[in-house]
Parts: sequence; structure tokens; C-alpha cells
Amino acid sequence: MKDVASAAGVALKTVSRVVNGEPGVHPETAERVRAAIDLLGYSRNESARVLRSGRTATIGLVIEDVADPFYAGLSRAVEDVVIEHGCLLLSGSSGEEPTRERELVETFCARRVDGIIVVPAGDDHTYLRAELEAGTAVVFADRPPGAGIDVDTVIVDNAGGAARAVRHLREHGHRRIAFLGDDPAIFTAAERLRGYREALGELYDPALVSMRSPSPAGVRDDLDRLFALDDPPTALFTGNGRYTMTTLRALRGRRVPLVGFDDFELADLMEPGVTVVAQDPARMGKVAAELLFHRLRGEGGPAERVELPVNLIVRGSGELPTPR
Amino acid sequence: MKDVASAAGVALKTVSRVVNGEPGVHPETAERVRAAIDLLGYSRNESARVLRSGRTATIGLVIEDVADPFYAGLSRAVEDVVIEHGCLLLSGSSGEEPTRERELVETFCARRVDGIIVVPAGDDHTYLRAELEAGTAVVFADRPPGAGIDVDTVIVDNAGGAARAVRHLREHGHRRIAFLGDDPAIFTAAERLRGYREALGELYDPALVSMRSPSPAGVRDDLDRLFALDDPPTALFTGNGRYTMTTLRALRGRRVPLVGFDDFELADLMEPGVTVVAQDPARMGKVAAELLFHRLRGEGGPAERVELPVNLIVRGSGELPTPR
Repeated sequence: MKDVASAAGVALKTVSRVVNGEPGVHPETAERVRAAIDLLGYSRNESARVLRSGRTATIGLVIEDVADPFYAGLSRAVEDVVIEHGCLLLSGSSGEEPTRERELVETFCARRVDGIIVVPAGDDHTYLRAELEAGTAVVFADRPPGAGIDVDTVIVDNAGGAARAVRHLREHGHRRIAFLGDDPAIFTAAERLRGYREALGELYDPALVSMRSPSPAGVRDDLDRLFALDDPPTALFTGNGRYTMTTLRALRGRRVPLVGFDDFELADLMEPGVTVVAQDPARMGKVAAELLFHRLRGEGGPAERVELPVNLIVRGSGELPTPR
Repeated sequence: MKDVASAAGVALKTVSRVVNGEPGVHPETAERVRAAIDLLGYSRNESARVLRSGRTATIGLVIEDVADPFYAGLSRAVEDVVIEHGCLLLSGSSGEEPTRERELVETFCARRVDGIIVVPAGDDHTYLRAELEAGTAVVFADRPPGAGIDVDTVIVDNAGGAARAVRHLREHGHRRIAFLGDDPAIFTAAERLRGYREALGELYDPALVSMRSPSPAGVRDDLDRLFALDDPPTALFTGNGRYTMTTLRALRGRRVPLVGFDDFELADLMEPGVTVVAQDPARMGKVAAELLFHRLRGEGGPAERVELPVNLIVRGSGELPTPR
């Protein structure tokens, strides 16, 4: 800035006024300063600016894994809103580890992000209290925060979606419907189990439920166990996109009626097409980011909990005849 | 820091020494300072630290679109290396627009990132010169920089991979092989066209080449045109994952011999499985990020150009009998 001031023949304070768009500088002088800046290739030192304004125009995003298409879609939507607001996005994947989630959030806070969007891996978020009191905006997405933390949250109707899938299979004559889902410690998995159970009512049988992290070997074992039952399932409900794909791979060649939670690329091109209860990760990302900027503009009011709808897409796999 | 100093009963300079891990502080005193820090919940102000050290421990990543599985996989691998080095990742999607690419890179530079990994959308990168001279480390991935910029670059053997795909189809008796690929202004698309052409030799016919951004309607039109030729293609080579999926969707129901560039989720579960020339986006991201940190550690030497291999995966679609 000293070089710019000396090249333009003005005071340091004048350069600062021009750079920060403050009034009180004659247009011709401002023009001379801008020309000197172009000439010298001076680029504003953002670090210095941050210390002055207390805002960094940076948003943090913690998701489970950016390589998972669901979170990739959510990330892109968050990024679009963040950039539209002239901000930048710091992002990191927790890998479903609570410690990693907390480390990422704390590192983002140490970098003085203005706001954070968190897809939580853990269920204790009391570590966020000091940041919330310090004025950092926080929005939770996909899963709500743990007890004692009251912040804006965007989720989908997990239980309603699971119930919709089960009702669809019941309407096609099934009474023995298995549920293959993620670890029930994960909010979305527990909610989908709840919806599954409620929609089955008196037909609910815990022997038809298998919940754990979806590994190919684990899913194969679970299917073997289910189909070896005296009264085996005639249809499957898979609890998320990763589970549906892993199950389809394990079933290779075997046509079992199936409805999955989450849509995925090429679901329509499988033989048969895969019937799913679809949520919209891009919409979730957009709504969460817009809520965050709403708070950053100083809008008050109690924490909001937005529940987005899901949508049954019928493609063939859920309507297959019962195997004999 | 003043509060910490007064709570611990030490000088401000002593707190600074403990926080920055500098020597010259008695272990008991250091312990007292750390206890005061814990007590007061003091978190290091990273902005102030940056101004002191000149390093921000931040890396920038510009890709085309994080919602594209190829770039999502690359991003995750970059993120893993960046975090392993105790740094954070700023990322943004260019949407294949050169202006957007430049804006993102310049914004990252204004934030004083230590290094940038760029998947370029444009072919003029002279705007990077000042940053390179200022010591910012830059690595290009997937596509090389434009003329006049000499930096480390990680690409795959695009031409060799395309030639491998074409040779595979020729070995299965095809002489009329169409190429559906992205806009040839994109480096990877142009290279794949070159490999396709070289492997076809005297069989090359420009009427069998369709190159443009892969929209569903565009691909349908191109296929209609190709199959309406007097001497239509008997096999297809699709130039990237997005193109392969769009083509499979446009072909619905029609079994045409096909080899695609890029592997994708569920390629093995299609009927028939999709034969592809696979690259490894996670490996590209890892190699690019490691090169970047290599430079940040001060390793000199001329710019490197790493060319990663690709791999033919035979699954059925490339080996279908010729349609009559």
C-alpha cells in the first residue's frame, strides 16, 4: 500500500479509502490510485482486512464424505449460494467420526469463519456453545445437533419417506419386508427405522431388520441370513443410496422386489429400474446455506427446523412380482 | 492473550512463546500458561498468526464441478493430503468457465493461500505469473496450463487410453467406430480424439465424430445422425463418464457395442456391464496434492509433468456382437 501511495502521490489513508470504497476521495484522485494499483499489481491483503472488519467472508462446511454423491450434490449447492454472497467455502469430510467433525469445526472457527454448516457425525455439540455466543452462525444439515444446542436445522422427512416405501410394498402384497439400513446411531437411519416400523404395525418383525455400516461383505451376510429364515422376506427396503447399490450388487442376478431410500445416478437404467424414495441433496444444501446468510444478515428469531419432503419414484424394482 | 498472561501471572511475550512452541520458557511456567488458556477458552487468532508468519496453511482447489463424481473423488483425495499436512482446503467449481476459474484463483490468492491446485477451464494462465513470482505454489491437474506458464502438471494418458479403447473394438471386428466426446477445446477431449484417430488410421472418418457438451437432447440427435448414415457405426466410443451415461440413457433398449472413457458407479451392474478405460481420480488428486506440498517444502527443480496410466476394464458392452 505504501508503494501505491507513493506511485499515486497520495497519503496512505487515501489508498485505504479507495480500496475499501469509503467516501471522501476526489474522483480524479481515486482514479489515480486505481491506476497505481493496476500498475503495481497490488492485491488487497485479505488477512489485514479481516483483522479490521471482524468478518472473513468465509463459510465452513463439514460433511461426511465429498466423494459420496449425496454430499457432493449438497456441497455444490452450498458453494453456489456462498459464492453468490461473495464469500469462499472451506470444506472438510468427517468420515462419520465425531472427533474429526469437532476438529474440523474448531479449526474453521480458529480461522474465524463467519458461519458453519455442519452435517454432524457425533451427537454432542456443546463444544459449539462458545462459538455461538461469539456470534458465529451455525446451521445443521441432514441431521440435527445433540441436546442443549439450539440452532437452525434442515432435514428431510426421513420417517415419512420410509413409511411411504413400506406402504408401497404392502400395496403390492408384501407382508414380510426386510430393512437393511445404516448404524441406528445415525439420526437418519434411526428415523427411517421408526417410519418402517410404524408403517408395518403388527407386521413388524425385528428378525427382518439389519442395521450396520454398508460393507459389501456385511450386506452379503445379512442377505444370506434373511433369505435363510423359515419365513424369509419377499421384499427389501434399503436405507440409503450406498446401501441400495451395495444390495443390488450383492443380489446380482436375483430379482427381489426392492425400494431404496435416496435416488442415485443410473437408477433409471438398471434392469428393472430402481424404485426409490428420493430426497434432493442440492435443495438441502441451498436451504441450509440461505438460512445461514439469513442469520448473518442479523435476522433474529428462534431457531428454525426445516423439514423437506421426499418423493416416491416408481421405476419397476418395487413392483416386481413376489419371488417363489 | 493479555487475559491469559494476567491469569497465569506471566509476561505477554511468555504466552506468545508457549503458543508458538518457542524455547526459553520454564516447563512449569508453560504448564501454567496452558492451564490459563484452557481456563479462559482462548483460541489462537489465526488471522494474526498469518500476518506474522506469511503462511496461511490454506490450499485452494479449483475444479470443474464438485457434483461430478470424477471431481468429487479428486477433491476428497486432495482434502485428505491437505488435512494430513495440517492445512485447510478452500474449494470452488468453475463450471467450465474460464472467467470463473480466474476469479476463483485470484480470490484464493487474495486470501494468501500457500498453494493452489487448478483444473483449468481456460487456456490462458498468464494471470498466474505474478502469483508464481510471489512464491505461491501451483499444480495443474487433469489438464495442463496454457502457453507460457511452466508448473507441475498431473494428467492421465488420454490419447493412449482412447487408442486402447479403439483397438479393443477393432479386435472385436469393428471398422466403423463412432466417437462421441466433449468440446474439443477441452484438452482431455482433444487428446482422446487424437488417440482415437491414431488407432483408427486409414479407417478414420470425420463423419463418425460428434463432439460437444453432453446434453441428453444433443446426444440423442448425434446418435440419430450417426445411425442414419449410409455406412453407420457398428460400435461407439464415448469420451468421458458423463457422455457414457448420457449415451446409455439415449440408447435405452438398444444394445450397441460400446466402450467408455472413465469408470463410474454401477458400470458393473448395467446389462451388459459397461467396458471402460478407467482413470483413477483419487490417485490424480493425491499425486497433485503431494507435488504441491513437495514444492511448499522448498524442493526446487524444473516443473514436472506426471502422466498417470489408464486401465481397460472388460465387462461386456464392448464385446457385444455387431448389430445387424
